[in-house]
Amino acid sequence: MKTRAAVAFEAKKPLEIVEVDLEGPKAGEVLVEIMATGICHTDAYTLDGFDSEGIFPSILGHEGAGIVREVGPGVTSVQPGDHVIPLYTPECRQCKSCLSGKTNLCTAIRATQGKGLMPDGTTRFSYKGQPIFHYMGCSTFSNFTVLPEIAVAKIREDAPFDKSCYIGCGVTTGVGAVVNSAKVTPGSNVIIFGLGGIGLNVIQGAKLVGADMIIGVDINDSKEEWGRRFGMTHFVNPNKVEGDIVQHLVALTDGGADYTFDCTGNTGVMRTALEACHRGWGESIIIGVAEAGKEISTRPFHLVTGRVWKGSAFGGAKGRTDVPKIVDWYMNGKIEIDPMITHMLSLEEINKGFDLMHAGESIRSVVVF
Amino acid sequence: MKTRAAVAFEAKKPLEIVEVDLEGPKAGEVLVEIMATGICHTDAYTLDGFDSEGIFPSILGHEGAGIVREVGPGVTSVQPGDHVIPLYTPECRQCKSCLSGKTNLCTAIRATQGKGLMPDGTTRFSYKGQPIFHYMGCSTFSNFTVLPEIAVAKIREDAPFDKSCYIGCGVTTGVGAVVNSAKVTPGSNVIIFGLGGIGLNVIQGAKLVGADMIIGVDINDSKEEWGRRFGMTHFVNPNKVEGDIVQHLVALTDGGADYTFDCTGNTGVMRTALEACHRGWGESIIIGVAEAGKEISTRPFHLVTGRVWKGSAFGGAKGRTDVPKIVDWYMNGKIEIDPMITHMLSLEEINKGFDLMHAGESIRSVVVF
Repeated sequence: MKTRAAVAFEAKKPLEIVEVDLEGPKAGEVLVEIMATGICHTDAYTLDGFDSEGIFPSILGHEGAGIVREVGPGVTSVQPGDHVIPLYTPECRQCKSCLSGKTNLCTAIRATQGKGLMPDGTTRFSYKGQPIFHYMGCSTFSNFTVLPEIAVAKIREDAPFDKSCYIGCGVTTGVGAVVNSAKVTPGSNVIIFGLGGIGLNVIQGAKLVGADMIIGVDINDSKEEWGRRFGMTHFVNPNKVEGDIVQHLVALTDGGADYTFDCTGNTGVMRTALEACHRGWGESIIIGVAEAGKEISTRPFHLVTGRVWKGSAFGGAKGRTDVPKIVDWYMNGKIEIDPMITHMLSLEEINKGFDLMHAGESIRSVVVF
Repeated sequence: MKTRAAVAFEAKKPLEIVEVDLEGPKAGEVLVEIMATGICHTDAYTLDGFDSEGIFPSILGHEGAGIVREVGPGVTSVQPGDHVIPLYTPECRQCKSCLSGKTNLCTAIRATQGKGLMPDGTTRFSYKGQPIFHYMGCSTFSNFTVLPEIAVAKIREDAPFDKSCYIGCGVTTGVGAVVNSAKVTPGSNVIIFGLGGIGLNVIQGAKLVGADMIIGVDINDSKEEWGRRFGMTHFVNPNKVEGDIVQHLVALTDGGADYTFDCTGNTGVMRTALEACHRGWGESIIIGVAEAGKEISTRPFHLVTGRVWKGSAFGGAKGRTDVPKIVDWYMNGKIEIDPMITHMLSLEEINKGFDLMHAGESIRSVVVF
């Protein structure tokens, strides 16, 4: 079949809207009509050439929502007409990781996914006879895409696509980091570094679980209003703090935070986040993706005296199990998404979405097909 | 009163055995007759001048066992005749840390202890009218010493002093790191870096809780026999591994260890220990004390993909609560101590104990008064 898609023919060039060829689903695969897709920093990271493992030409996009239109042989968990969210972190429920019960990082199709291929080692997309690679196993910047059955989460049909798509990455990454990775407890003091889309979702996750102090840290004062909108109780601009930021935050929290979250990707901030944790039990969770080659460091003393350094990918969420629950939370009003969708675009306007992101003018732009 | 003690008059000099003056216990304090004391690397670290906060003249030693001989006003939890182990990590049961239930790092007397003083800001020891400072709140290299009530653990009376003293530091640090800090589960694969006294106690802790693979790593082949003696199932000498040690250990454990422990204090080894953890859930626990100024570092990727970096001090043990249990474990044969006590010395021979340690010829030397 043919489908409209925004193709990244090479790094550092605008996406091109073209008609590409798409093969139907093979065994264990499903064809999904993407109804809406968010534009995430990770798409820009790859398009801008920062990802040393980026593959071109490819169809980017990994934050979508849509409808199953066709299923390949052997598919049993979804059927045509089902509403789904594609999962860049699949959930096979059979690999060592899934069966461990201790991680969401399913390894069933990791090797091929990293190479821009479907599990059988081929691509479904092509353009003028040349293969186009998949991206993060999703390629939601295409009106139709093919996904492994284990990489779609079936969701309720009354959830609007242009909002629920954000649950495919940003919302789950932020809220899930609080709920699944850190397991923040009621009454905790929490510090969030970086108040972009992920940071705001960490904030509303912390509010959801009943945190006491929810402290947002950002060098951009305009973020304060955004943070407070979702439950932030205190705002700190490090550039306006006299003296050491760690000491300032430790004093503000009477000894340090119970949980801190890095949503910046800056390794210096990651260190600050760890050291602002309370002696004896504070946990720091790294969510942000660092530049290639950058390393985190600290004095081991900070760990020996009881701080814990960990990370979170896709909010520690098991895609097929947890994503439908987060959709429920949104539909039941336990979390908000609507005010975070600052821009709605057509596929033809997708490059504008990247421009808005780079200019810091959007929280989330969503492309509606 | 007078007591015999080994005094560290200055750094990098042998201890001197002299008679010092000791004031009796004030309110909330107890006088303890030390019956036996181990010589720990931390004592040597201070004596050798590596501890920038080391204070002289002082009476070192923090791994003792003895008998309460006198109690000050208000003391209710112990009485003369009770057998006790001094605690360099006290347990007041009233401070924010103790009440959190999340850490053993009681802060009740931290400020004065760090300055070599009793909680009232004075010393009990003096020599020729000059104050002698306390060390780690214990000063077990003295036949008699004074301790805060909250810094003694009452233990059963049939435990031999010359063995149970080792529970005052090394045994609890190693076994407790497994049981309390990591909470190693049965069937886990565990890697221990550094097979000195702490490493051997981590090994027997891992055996106690039913770990599967218990892999010891040391550059000294002579440690293999020691490790196997306490439950080690595999030995790896990194100098004899071709290629990358992390890759070797990840392959040996089919993806990485569930838990790794650094017992070396070497920050490069700490990094190896983290990176040898299993993707998704592996936890690395730092026990070793690093040189001043040294930092740990890694790529944040290792944490984002599910590894956890933490530390352990005094084995995460609450002194008054957990130390008596570890004494029971020893007396009931659940853990061993006797074969680790390689040398018994008199107080006059204490400097020989340091020499044996520096030469790597002892696991633990114990001074018996």
